[in-house]
Amino acid sequence: MSKGITSKNDDYSQWYNELVTKADLAEHSAVKGCMVIKPYGYSIWEKMQAALDKMFKDTGHSNAYFPLFIPKSFFSKEAAHVEGFATECAVVTHYRLKNDGNGNIIVDPDAKLEEELIVRPTSETIIWNTYRGWIQSYRDLPLLINQWANVVRWEMRTRLFLRTTEFLWQEGHTAHATSAEAVEEAERMLDVYADFAENWMAMPVIKGIKTANERFAGAVETYCIEALMQDGKALQAGTSHFLGQNFAKAFDVKFTSKEGKLDHVWATSWGVSTRLMGALIMAHSDDQGLVLPPKLAPIQVVIVPIYRNDEDLAQISEVAKALVAELKAKNISVKYDDRDTQRPGFKFAEYELKGVPVRVAMGGRDIENGTAEIARRDTREKQTITRDGLAGYIETLLDDIQTNIYSKAYKFRAESIVKVDTYDEFKRLLDEKPGFLSAHWDGTPESEQKIKEETKATIRCIPLDNELEDGICIYSGKPSKQRVLFARAY
Amino acid sequence: MSKGITSKNDDYSQWYNELVTKADLAEHSAVKGCMVIKPYGYSIWEKMQAALDKMFKDTGHSNAYFPLFIPKSFFSKEAAHVEGFATECAVVTHYRLKNDGNGNIIVDPDAKLEEELIVRPTSETIIWNTYRGWIQSYRDLPLLINQWANVVRWEMRTRLFLRTTEFLWQEGHTAHATSAEAVEEAERMLDVYADFAENWMAMPVIKGIKTANERFAGAVETYCIEALMQDGKALQAGTSHFLGQNFAKAFDVKFTSKEGKLDHVWATSWGVSTRLMGALIMAHSDDQGLVLPPKLAPIQVVIVPIYRNDEDLAQISEVAKALVAELKAKNISVKYDDRDTQRPGFKFAEYELKGVPVRVAMGGRDIENGTAEIARRDTREKQTITRDGLAGYIETLLDDIQTNIYSKAYKFRAESIVKVDTYDEFKRLLDEKPGFLSAHWDGTPESEQKIKEETKATIRCIPLDNELEDGICIYSGKPSKQRVLFARAY
Repeated sequence: MSKGITSKNDDYSQWYNELVTKADLAEHSAVKGCMVIKPYGYSIWEKMQAALDKMFKDTGHSNAYFPLFIPKSFFSKEAAHVEGFATECAVVTHYRLKNDGNGNIIVDPDAKLEEELIVRPTSETIIWNTYRGWIQSYRDLPLLINQWANVVRWEMRTRLFLRTTEFLWQEGHTAHATSAEAVEEAERMLDVYADFAENWMAMPVIKGIKTANERFAGAVETYCIEALMQDGKALQAGTSHFLGQNFAKAFDVKFTSKEGKLDHVWATSWGVSTRLMGALIMAHSDDQGLVLPPKLAPIQVVIVPIYRNDEDLAQISEVAKALVAELKAKNISVKYDDRDTQRPGFKFAEYELKGVPVRVAMGGRDIENGTAEIARRDTREKQTITRDGLAGYIETLLDDIQTNIYSKAYKFRAESIVKVDTYDEFKRLLDEKPGFLSAHWDGTPESEQKIKEETKATIRCIPLDNELEDGICIYSGKPSKQRVLFARAY
Repeated sequence: MSKGITSKNDDYSQWYNELVTKADLAEHSAVKGCMVIKPYGYSIWEKMQAALDKMFKDTGHSNAYFPLFIPKSFFSKEAAHVEGFATECAVVTHYRLKNDGNGNIIVDPDAKLEEELIVRPTSETIIWNTYRGWIQSYRDLPLLINQWANVVRWEMRTRLFLRTTEFLWQEGHTAHATSAEAVEEAERMLDVYADFAENWMAMPVIKGIKTANERFAGAVETYCIEALMQDGKALQAGTSHFLGQNFAKAFDVKFTSKEGKLDHVWATSWGVSTRLMGALIMAHSDDQGLVLPPKLAPIQVVIVPIYRNDEDLAQISEVAKALVAELKAKNISVKYDDRDTQRPGFKFAEYELKGVPVRVAMGGRDIENGTAEIARRDTREKQTITRDGLAGYIETLLDDIQTNIYSKAYKFRAESIVKVDTYDEFKRLLDEKPGFLSAHWDGTPESEQKIKEETKATIRCIPLDNELEDGICIYSGKPSKQRVLFARAY
């Protein structure tokens, strides 16, 4: 197959869009801003879900399900929250259609809801309204719940996976007896996200906290993991919020402590979404197509027979099928592609496009020699390997690829974090060598806002492991106690 | 704990409602008609999902995700379809809220959608509109896709799990080159559902087809599985539809055959929902609480220590933890409940309520004697078993319980299928001994409708394995070629 993908050096944005559609990951739907996640894309998301879900359960969380709709009055109860989400809410106002008598289907004006319903953009309000009935005593705490769901945030400018009106995500919502326990939970889940990003997605991330400007609407503190894409733009890959008692107060959720004292409950919420699909694609892929880390690749190994006639094919198939069985026994997902409708070259290109980590090609000569040609997707290197011990070789190779993809991304990111001490240098680097710019900031929302307006760079985070250092703000010249990380971001 | 559940013989409906809430499965939310699925209920649903998802994948299907919203114009394209769903559609008309200046959050009148969006009640229309871009040639067929999603059907009278405005389900949507292949697919998926109902839910079902009156809006043929609840009412547990070319024609989805001929594609759709949770509860449970088939029980075995002092507990814990390890090695989910905040009697009642299939109690004397007391939930029988080989005993016992629950339900259903030849007898039995009534029907929608109006009984299905038999319709006295199954239903 001819891939014809725009080079990422020519037009990174176009390269991304083409990759998403040509690799059959997703496409725009007829509904403005909403995407269709195609089977191949969805199978990667399922692998992400399975890994994350296990991590959540291993840290004591259970899944539950809360309503899609939120009454407008609930939504309005936490002031900062409604302010943050009001402009992007889909609103249900009617509950019936009817035929107007002329064969037109119209919204039935007699079926207007007394109170409008908001399609959840996030579920804090409906969940905390429910928690009021679940929490009375310290014995009911901590309450550690997660939900896998769709949410809707009305977006004017959308991009597949990165910014869509409807997206899929998980949202954890926990309740605790003390502030310290809630903070600990928020940090624990940030660690889970970082672990997932680095060890499954092979994507290094920086853990940090958001400035007040960038905080979640209703949070006291927002923790985040920030990743760097290959074009030097940052991407927020997950957030974990310490909500203080804000939602407990808005929804009157109190508990009796061991000592018999009545107090409001402390809360966290945390989420990652199908946005991670965009991050995964942009972090590793190249002009030939996707580069997927083996741990998230739906097909880890593909075997392609190269034959001139049926006799050839029969011999190759026998060897290939034995290899399939050996790989499956090692829990490696493998596909033997003996379709006779496509030539090997077409298949090679197709599996490169789809990011299959290891390709095994077997021809008549390989059968004679007891060998196979192994190509790895990440480096595109080929090697001829003997058939004996091939399954073990591939198993090790998959681990090597996982590590190599991470190392490459880590090296790129390390080179892309630059200390900057003047605003001129800051602006120059943003254009010439984009990445994370580590710069002093005076701590005011005003300077942050001005920098954003003038350069489109935002403070991605104040890294958790930040060292204190005296300096002066690149914008205002006022004193600063630490550097923060700026970048242009998705 | 005191369960205080209404007896199912006194008030079956009340018994069901109390069971759902007291066993922590689900509760009503603040949003009319929408439920909250609580962690314990959701963990059963997750087990159902996992089993079904594997069955779908084993039969060649892939998962994907389509938008929550459907433009009103799409929805109107298939005439029978829109007619069937128009009266229960939630409609999004606006995409923004705003502060009215007096501190009130209102729907922004300037943010009205040009075209209203329907919250999907089912996804045929949005999916077939998408398939138009995916299908050109016979090479693209069959297209075998499933979606796990939430759907909304506005209901005036709701019951937890059985009938809720929002529910969770899966919907398969497949496309085929021939009518025969599509029919084969619809029947295959009906078999998958029946297999799941019988072998996982331990719930016998009758496979059949619906009459025209009861058919899915837009289908040519609706296949169904019908189960019988303990009160003698039927419950439709799953449906599989042969859609003919209706949606392909409405959305102009054509393919070029091998012979180069252009034709519309043939379709199926099929779904099961969180309604199955209601069926599972009603099929097996008793006045003590849930009775869960071991294959779907989140906790299959609970171990409760019975101790007078810490020394006792230490001894028991050592033995219990070894048993936990042995059971886990057999992939049995087990909980050791050594909470010191509750007494054994409370725990016994709690696990009975929650339907844990096997309870192991261990006291000081058991440790001395090398025994344990085993109680099975289905029959509530207790036995003292020696510690040697206990894990193996429990493994076998879980299989026995699965089989026994099914057999009991099967026996009840067998006794509840009665042949009836007169309308008087029909009406008498509906009140006195409800169940499936096998009766002759003249095949007209008119007689079917009259019977429904007069008795609230509907034709549940024409069984697939039905024998032809000459007779006369119980209602009209007109000739009939076969009996059909009537019942009052959920």
